[in-house]
Amino acid sequence: MASLPRVLSVQSHVVHGYVGNRAAVFPLQLLGFEVDVINSVQFCCHTGYPSFAGQRLSGDDLETLIKGMSTNQVLNHSFLLTGYIGTASFLREVLKLRQMLPASCCYVCDPVLGDNGHMYVPEDLVAVYRTDVLQHVSVLTPNQFEAELLTQMSITGIDDAAAACDKLHQMGPKIVVLTTLDVPEATREGQDVAMMLSFSGRKWMLRLPRVEGGPFTGTGDLTAAMILAWTQRKPHELPLALEMAGAVLQAVIKKTMASSAAQMIGDKRVPPELRLIESKVAIESPSIRFRCQLTPPLNFACLAFHDAVVDGNCKGILQSLSAAARVCVVSDKADTSKDFSTLEKLSVLCVKSGDSQAFATSLSSIGISPREVLAVGATCDFLATAAAAGCCPVAMLVGDDSEGQSNGNPSGGARDHQSLSAKAEFTISSFDSLRRFLPAWSGCPE
Amino acid sequence: MASLPRVLSVQSHVVHGYVGNRAAVFPLQLLGFEVDVINSVQFCCHTGYPSFAGQRLSGDDLETLIKGMSTNQVLNHSFLLTGYIGTASFLREVLKLRQMLPASCCYVCDPVLGDNGHMYVPEDLVAVYRTDVLQHVSVLTPNQFEAELLTQMSITGIDDAAAACDKLHQMGPKIVVLTTLDVPEATREGQDVAMMLSFSGRKWMLRLPRVEGGPFTGTGDLTAAMILAWTQRKPHELPLALEMAGAVLQAVIKKTMASSAAQMIGDKRVPPELRLIESKVAIESPSIRFRCQLTPPLNFACLAFHDAVVDGNCKGILQSLSAAARVCVVSDKADTSKDFSTLEKLSVLCVKSGDSQAFATSLSSIGISPREVLAVGATCDFLATAAAAGCCPVAMLVGDDSEGQSNGNPSGGARDHQSLSAKAEFTISSFDSLRRFLPAWSGCPE
Repeated sequence: MASLPRVLSVQSHVVHGYVGNRAAVFPLQLLGFEVDVINSVQFCCHTGYPSFAGQRLSGDDLETLIKGMSTNQVLNHSFLLTGYIGTASFLREVLKLRQMLPASCCYVCDPVLGDNGHMYVPEDLVAVYRTDVLQHVSVLTPNQFEAELLTQMSITGIDDAAAACDKLHQMGPKIVVLTTLDVPEATREGQDVAMMLSFSGRKWMLRLPRVEGGPFTGTGDLTAAMILAWTQRKPHELPLALEMAGAVLQAVIKKTMASSAAQMIGDKRVPPELRLIESKVAIESPSIRFRCQLTPPLNFACLAFHDAVVDGNCKGILQSLSAAARVCVVSDKADTSKDFSTLEKLSVLCVKSGDSQAFATSLSSIGISPREVLAVGATCDFLATAAAAGCCPVAMLVGDDSEGQSNGNPSGGARDHQSLSAKAEFTISSFDSLRRFLPAWSGCPE
Repeated sequence: MASLPRVLSVQSHVVHGYVGNRAAVFPLQLLGFEVDVINSVQFCCHTGYPSFAGQRLSGDDLETLIKGMSTNQVLNHSFLLTGYIGTASFLREVLKLRQMLPASCCYVCDPVLGDNGHMYVPEDLVAVYRTDVLQHVSVLTPNQFEAELLTQMSITGIDDAAAACDKLHQMGPKIVVLTTLDVPEATREGQDVAMMLSFSGRKWMLRLPRVEGGPFTGTGDLTAAMILAWTQRKPHELPLALEMAGAVLQAVIKKTMASSAAQMIGDKRVPPELRLIESKVAIESPSIRFRCQLTPPLNFACLAFHDAVVDGNCKGILQSLSAAARVCVVSDKADTSKDFSTLEKLSVLCVKSGDSQAFATSLSSIGISPREVLAVGATCDFLATAAAAGCCPVAMLVGDDSEGQSNGNPSGGARDHQSLSAKAEFTISSFDSLRRFLPAWSGCPE
């Protein structure tokens, strides 16, 4: 049996409520992660309550724990996750910890500095993150304000956000998720909340309907944990990872609002604690209603599906898609067209396997330029042919995507996904994922 | 929506591995408990590793947390769970905490003192548990050695164990579970591990096959947590609660042995950590293979089932039972006998509802004395009639047994179970549970 992915999570602990490790650990455990837990503080409740009495771990205390773990030969994690860190000295100790973990360890850093223009850590932490930490980070999950502090840029629109992501990439992280993007252009004037995912030169925006009653405490910590979990599970389809994380957030917040309201405790209004325990099923199996949008959108006129990814059962979907874009099926079998003969708007192109010239020619023959085409296939051959013809190759990934969890299946395992992804410009794992490119299409949720 | 049962768990925390709160919290959360978590220490690993460096919470620190929780009005737990406590002053602080919780709060205390004749806390803790703590405890889960220390009795056989339980009841706890009972008489010369449950003047013994490869660290903490969880879920059928806890333990230990082995770390042999994360399904839905045995066993000659709890579908079970005991069906309908006419050994007694005299007479007519009869029914009327006839009434509980989770069903809810239990000498919730009284019967596992 393959061993489970191992996370070392360094965050706050509260006796009551769900922030920091209390918001991150249970959901990660539910999703099959072995989580080692360093509690940077133990407070009775989070700082939104009248009292947050408790104890803090010093940098020296942290060093003591790490040395002990080193002695015990258990510093072999595949992920390091950090959230709120209150002092520069503690943050520097975390960096030392990072150095003691395997080089392959993926550092998922939520650079908690503040929110909505208000800092809740000392200002000197910003410089430590900028100059010392970010270069070691693989996945960074700042909110908009934190991204502004780290990049020293102001974000007033989507283009600014994209530019800030690019600057953050230059500072180290290969994957950046802006966990909030509160600009009217992104939120439809505040009706939605928006997040932006940036990697490999592409930006993706996820909009979710704003749920009234917040803000809730702990959502940022839960978000970072779910981004860790789902980027591990869907390494070759990161927009799906963000969609999954977003679906969990929405489900947890809705459950929270449905079962509790803010309370006056002393003279403080305390929002309800996240209902994580009741949200178990939604965390284990999030159901996606909202998809990322490629930002800026791709201008394409046609979807060309390899016949290996469509069959008679897909007719309904193809029909629905053909209302949003031109749709063709590409096949090297002469009789494929009869399978789709009932679909009026659909063209079937007969192209010999590997013949990119014929691919381009047959597209031209129906009045389409290859560079306007998203070509969707599930074999490396098809994707290579489509790319050589000038189309944008999109890999359809089937089966489990997790690294190291392939169980020797002949196809559909992680290795398969890796080679398909390498040949493709984009990856999807369902027809519904095409909504990322077709904002107007209503999709086909499972 | 009814709110979830709330637990306050005061135990150790380790960064890596599963002991104390790390062994208790995730399983409780999986089973739908809101768990507030006070970590009495934060060590890198448990004390079986070469290093267990870390920090300890002082009694004053604990007081700080509790005062904060009190200020925040969140000391409203339905359960207090404590495990390893290292000093008398900390234990006294825990007692103060108990006083601040609602009077209805159920204190589940694992009085961790030592094991196998070896103490791992200062000796003065024994006296504090004896004189100050036990009187406030509802459910006590000592191992055999701890029971001996607390009672100042020596346990060398099953009768000794029962006597120790009785002495512990006198000191406070209504429910006592000896989580180990390592006497040859109980363990079949070491082939099994044995536990004893004691409440309401009855003793029940659960034997489970010993799994080679242990001892594992954290099993005691997991046991206490699962006893808490399942006594909450099955308040009217406590032997089932112990069976559930035992089934979880067995499943977790088997999973642990199947996927890992002890390691030499430095010069210490460290047993594998419990595989709690992989055991999620087994924790959520334990499947029972081993049943408690009423100890000493009841001498009875006959099982009499009310016709409301048996129908044609039960024929196989009744047939199988009739190899182990005399079986009758009691009905006030004249034509019931034809439903069971194919069963040779089964008698159908026609008794008017409520007529205890006729009940006794018809038993005598087939040569059975009422006091040798377990009479199984699912209505208060039947149980009262059976009791008046001189039989031992056994309530068959149907549906969910949890307190406060009845959703207004006309029958089968918690209230129903409570009134049935009040009329009965014993309760069961499946035919298979009859194995508790019939050690020789192979049962009918679901």
